[in-house]
Amino acid sequence: MKPRNPALGEFGRIARFFQPLAQAFPGSLGLTDDAALIATPPGKDLIVTTDAIVEGVHFLPSDNAGDIAHKALRVNLSDLAAEGAQPLAYTLTLATPHSIGDDWIEAFAAALALDQSNYGIGLAGGDSVSTSGPLWISITAFGLADAGRMVRRNRAQPGDIVFVTGTIGDAALGLACLRDEISVSPEDRTALSDRYRIPQPRCALAPALAEYASASIDISDGLAADFGHICRASGVRGVIDTSLIPLSPAARRASIADPQCLSPILNGGDDYEILFTAPAMALDGLYRAASEADISLTQIGCIEAGEHGAFLFDINGLPVILDKTGWTHN
Amino acid sequence: MKPRNPALGEFGRIARFFQPLAQAFPGSLGLTDDAALIATPPGKDLIVTTDAIVEGVHFLPSDNAGDIAHKALRVNLSDLAAEGAQPLAYTLTLATPHSIGDDWIEAFAAALALDQSNYGIGLAGGDSVSTSGPLWISITAFGLADAGRMVRRNRAQPGDIVFVTGTIGDAALGLACLRDEISVSPEDRTALSDRYRIPQPRCALAPALAEYASASIDISDGLAADFGHICRASGVRGVIDTSLIPLSPAARRASIADPQCLSPILNGGDDYEILFTAPAMALDGLYRAASEADISLTQIGCIEAGEHGAFLFDINGLPVILDKTGWTHN
Repeated sequence: MKPRNPALGEFGRIARFFQPLAQAFPGSLGLTDDAALIATPPGKDLIVTTDAIVEGVHFLPSDNAGDIAHKALRVNLSDLAAEGAQPLAYTLTLATPHSIGDDWIEAFAAALALDQSNYGIGLAGGDSVSTSGPLWISITAFGLADAGRMVRRNRAQPGDIVFVTGTIGDAALGLACLRDEISVSPEDRTALSDRYRIPQPRCALAPALAEYASASIDISDGLAADFGHICRASGVRGVIDTSLIPLSPAARRASIADPQCLSPILNGGDDYEILFTAPAMALDGLYRAASEADISLTQIGCIEAGEHGAFLFDINGLPVILDKTGWTHN
Repeated sequence: MKPRNPALGEFGRIARFFQPLAQAFPGSLGLTDDAALIATPPGKDLIVTTDAIVEGVHFLPSDNAGDIAHKALRVNLSDLAAEGAQPLAYTLTLATPHSIGDDWIEAFAAALALDQSNYGIGLAGGDSVSTSGPLWISITAFGLADAGRMVRRNRAQPGDIVFVTGTIGDAALGLACLRDEISVSPEDRTALSDRYRIPQPRCALAPALAEYASASIDISDGLAADFGHICRASGVRGVIDTSLIPLSPAARRASIADPQCLSPILNGGDDYEILFTAPAMALDGLYRAASEADISLTQIGCIEAGEHGAFLFDINGLPVILDKTGWTHN
C-alpha cells in the first residue's frame, strides 16, 4: 500500500480526493467553508437520515476501499428509498487509522464518485479524522420527497398487502460464507457475499412507494424484526407466510442443504431490500412501477384485524418461532 | 460503572435515552422512523455542518461523559455561529466500545439535554453503533441563516478590520496542562483545561456576524491557520499584530513564565472563538451586539492591499515565523 504522503496533509487530502466529489452539489460551496447550504425546492420535503458503518461490525477488515465506500453510502440511500425520497446529497465523516494510505483514500473516493453518478447525488460536506481504532464512516444523507408524502412505518392498515422487493437472506448467508459458517459452491459464495458487501438500494422504487405504500422500511435489522417495527408502529396485526419469502437460487440451495439457514433468512440484517404495505387497489400501479424499475416484487403476507403484533407462519400454517428477534449489530 | 443492561438492547437504549431528546424537534418524528423531516422556513437558508470527535484525538480517555457530549455538539454549533446561523437541530451517531455502561450513556444524554435547552435545539435522528476501538461521536448540525446571509470565508476586503471573540490559546494551553507539558497554578490549570474540554460556541453573536461580517471562521485549526484560510479564500493580504491577541489572565501568566507558549497560542486548535473581518463602518453595531451577548471582541489586525497571504507581526513590527502552520488533529 502506498503510504500517506505527509506533505499532502489533511487539507491537501481534502482538496485532492473530496473537493472533486463536491462539484456535483453546488450547496457544498466547494468544501471551502465549514458548512453547506441545502435548499428544499417548493413542493418538496427534505428528508434526512444518518447511518454509520464500522470495520469489524458492519464490514470486514478484508473488504476493499471501494466496497466500503459503496456500503457506507448505500445503506443511507436505502433508508431514503424506503421513505419514498429521491437522494440529493450527503455529508461524510471518514475516520482512518494511520495505516490507511493515499491509494486507499483514492479508491474510496473513486467509488463514491461512481455512486454519485449512479444515484444523482453530490458530496455536501464532511469531516476527516484519525483514529487509533478500526476505520469507520458516518454519513448523513439528504433526500427530497413530495411534500407530505414521506412514507413512514406507522400507517399500515387491516386489508393491506405486505410486499418485499428483491430476494431475502442473501446478505446474512453471504456473511456466514465469509465467516466459513456455511459451505456452498464457489459461485453461490460469490453471489451471496456480494449481496453482503454491496447493498443495492431500491431508489428507483421510491416514487412508487411515495404514491402507493401505507408503511415502509428497509430491511437492515432482518425481515422479522423490521416487520415487527411496522406492525408495532402501525398498531396492527401483520402476518407473513414464510414460504412466500423470495429467495435467490443461491439462498434456496443453501437452505435446502441446511435447514438452519432459515434463521439468517428471517433474522439476518444487511439485505437492504424494502418491506412495505399497500392497499390491494395499488397492486397494478406497484407492479408496473417495479417492472419499469427492474425490481422484483413479492407479496408475502397481509395486515389483518385482530391481536396486534407481527406473526410468521410456515407453509402448513404453523407459527414460526424465532430464536432471536433481529439483528442489532451489537 | 453500571454495566450495560443486556435486556435493554439497542432499541430499548434509544427509547430510554435518546427519544426524550427528540421531543424538542418535531421533525425527528420521535425517532420512530429511519429518517427525519427538516423544514426550512420561508426567508431562511438551511446551513449544515458535520464534525466528529474521537477519543484520544479530540478528547481524553479520562474526560467524563457529560464533557464529551458538550464538546461533540458544541464544535458543530461553533461552525454554525461562524456562518451566522442560529442552531436548529442535529443528528447524532454514537459509537461505543462494549465497556461503556448504561450510566455513561445516561450522563451523555443528560448533557445533550442541557445543551438542547441552552441553545434551543433538538435531536433530529441518529445511529448507535458498537466499536472495538476508541469511542467516537459524529454530529451533523443544522442551522438557519437569513436567506443569502450565510457568512463565508471568502469576502474579506482591503480596509476590513480583523476581529476575534473571547481569548485565544486557552484550549491549547489547557491540553498542554493535562499532558503535563507545562506547569501552572492549580487555578490556572482548571481554567485552561476547562477551555479545552468544554467549548463555548459563540451562537449569540451569529445574528451580528450575519449582519456585519465580510468573512468569518471559528478557530478550530489555530488562529494562524484559520486566518490563513480566510486570506486565501478571499484572495487578500491580512495582517495580525500578535501583541493585540487577547489572552486570558491564565494564558498571560503561562506565556510570561514560558515564552514557548506563543506557539500553542498561535497554532493551537480547539478555542472555538470566532475570527472574522468586517468593514470599519460596522464597528458600532458589532460592539453593541457583542456587549449585549456578553462576548468580548478585540481588533487584532486588518486586511490590506498588497501581496496575498496571512502575515503575523510582533509588537516591534517584526514578522512572526511559525514553526508549524496549524493544528490538523492528525
